[in-house]
Amino acid sequence: MIKELINGKTTACVASTDRGLLYGDGLFETIAVIDGTLRHWPRHLSRLQAGCDRLGIPAVDGRELAHECQALAGNAARAVLKVIVTRGSGGRGYRVPEKTVATRIVQLHDWPVFPPVCAETGVAVRVCKTRLGDNPALAGIKHLNRLEQVLARQEWSDPDIMEGLLLDAAGYLIEGTMSNLFLLRDETLLTPDLHRCGVAGIMRTRVLELSEQLAIDAHIRPVEMKDLREADEIFICNSLIGIWPVIAVDSSEYEKGVVTARLQNLLDSCPDTGNSWRT
Amino acid sequence: MIKELINGKTTACVASTDRGLLYGDGLFETIAVIDGTLRHWPRHLSRLQAGCDRLGIPAVDGRELAHECQALAGNAARAVLKVIVTRGSGGRGYRVPEKTVATRIVQLHDWPVFPPVCAETGVAVRVCKTRLGDNPALAGIKHLNRLEQVLARQEWSDPDIMEGLLLDAAGYLIEGTMSNLFLLRDETLLTPDLHRCGVAGIMRTRVLELSEQLAIDAHIRPVEMKDLREADEIFICNSLIGIWPVIAVDSSEYEKGVVTARLQNLLDSCPDTGNSWRT
Repeated sequence: MIKELINGKTTACVASTDRGLLYGDGLFETIAVIDGTLRHWPRHLSRLQAGCDRLGIPAVDGRELAHECQALAGNAARAVLKVIVTRGSGGRGYRVPEKTVATRIVQLHDWPVFPPVCAETGVAVRVCKTRLGDNPALAGIKHLNRLEQVLARQEWSDPDIMEGLLLDAAGYLIEGTMSNLFLLRDETLLTPDLHRCGVAGIMRTRVLELSEQLAIDAHIRPVEMKDLREADEIFICNSLIGIWPVIAVDSSEYEKGVVTARLQNLLDSCPDTGNSWRT
Repeated sequence: MIKELINGKTTACVASTDRGLLYGDGLFETIAVIDGTLRHWPRHLSRLQAGCDRLGIPAVDGRELAHECQALAGNAARAVLKVIVTRGSGGRGYRVPEKTVATRIVQLHDWPVFPPVCAETGVAVRVCKTRLGDNPALAGIKHLNRLEQVLARQEWSDPDIMEGLLLDAAGYLIEGTMSNLFLLRDETLLTPDLHRCGVAGIMRTRVLELSEQLAIDAHIRPVEMKDLREADEIFICNSLIGIWPVIAVDSSEYEKGVVTARLQNLLDSCPDTGNSWRT
């Protein structure tokens, strides 16, 4: 990590009574900083606030948080901001105390080094054995209960496999451990419905918008392994990697597709700066 | 909290890079201290180690942990020890770094004040709307991903309701937010199967042993709401409360039962000291 602010102060210490630690009682965002700009800031803030609403954590002061993020990001050419908001300290039991003061953590990390081949040629992924449990009350938001992702990511160490795909208990495809999933079938884009589990990624929404600009039909619906097997194109996306074509799922090979490339090009040429934030 | 040790040191500070905070990547135990003795210590340690095994966290040094717990507990007449073990610091992503050093937190808390009527007469409980997601890989162990319990506990504030019962996505009864559930039907004790979700409580195991001593048939199997409605007796249990009869579930009333009372008496008279720990 490069530097950090916790509740506005330079420290790396969180209270051992923080409910983020005790129960994973909080939320996070992972934000790309490019040329000192917080990419998709309003979208990240909006998802964070939606998560707070869902968990009953008092709303974050968006202006204050933005200023802290910008103070850390400075003029960084490329960096990653991780924002964590927890319910704060209180109680040994699950019951939420009447008054809680949220903990606000902002961390600036180095930009991860992705081999250029990932975006250009595409990546190999695997289907994980670890399944996502259904929980509509937690679906969509980016909360701190991430053991399923940790267990899934432990399933492989082969550095050539860049992502693992996760199914729910019923066998539907939901997402990658750190990304959202898109398939193209019969010239229609498909991405899994996330009403029962999964994280609704900022880049997923952006891809759906871009597909509209390109007049590509896109559907959000339950996605089966059959859809994956019969897909003409597959890609994964998140705020840091953008769009990566998938050219192998376990032993099945796929071509990097034309639609995937068109979406990548449009994403590169439309940085969505009106939706970013800079002082 | 009364006092605390983190990795053997007197501090209340956890690193903001700890995976316990970032992902709930860890486990905990809640241990009753009675007259300076750690009740059911070997059972707690064993479940903690099983949890570490399951998550791939290096095994805890049980002797060291026991000494830290005992140092904090001293001769306390009644107190609660909370032990938290996380995977320690490492990485911004879900991937577990090659070398991690677990974080060991031991906290001594005041004994909670339970109205005597809870154990004597029994308690009212409710059935929660929040459901438990299925995840066999996480079932049984006491991990730090506890948002489901936090959400469930937020469903009520009536101080006369002492516990909320949780169903899984399929509608089977699993447990309480902080306790395990037992029913008596046709002179047979029933407690939910926990292979897909739920925490396998220390007191749950103890109750199953006590029922054997009393020659009461006990079955671990899926439990439906129908079983609850037709139950002759209901009780909940955990390491701190022991056994509490349930005399109301929402608007349905139940009698405190004879079998529940026999189990309470046997629990009180068999403190299982051979299974406790004291220097």
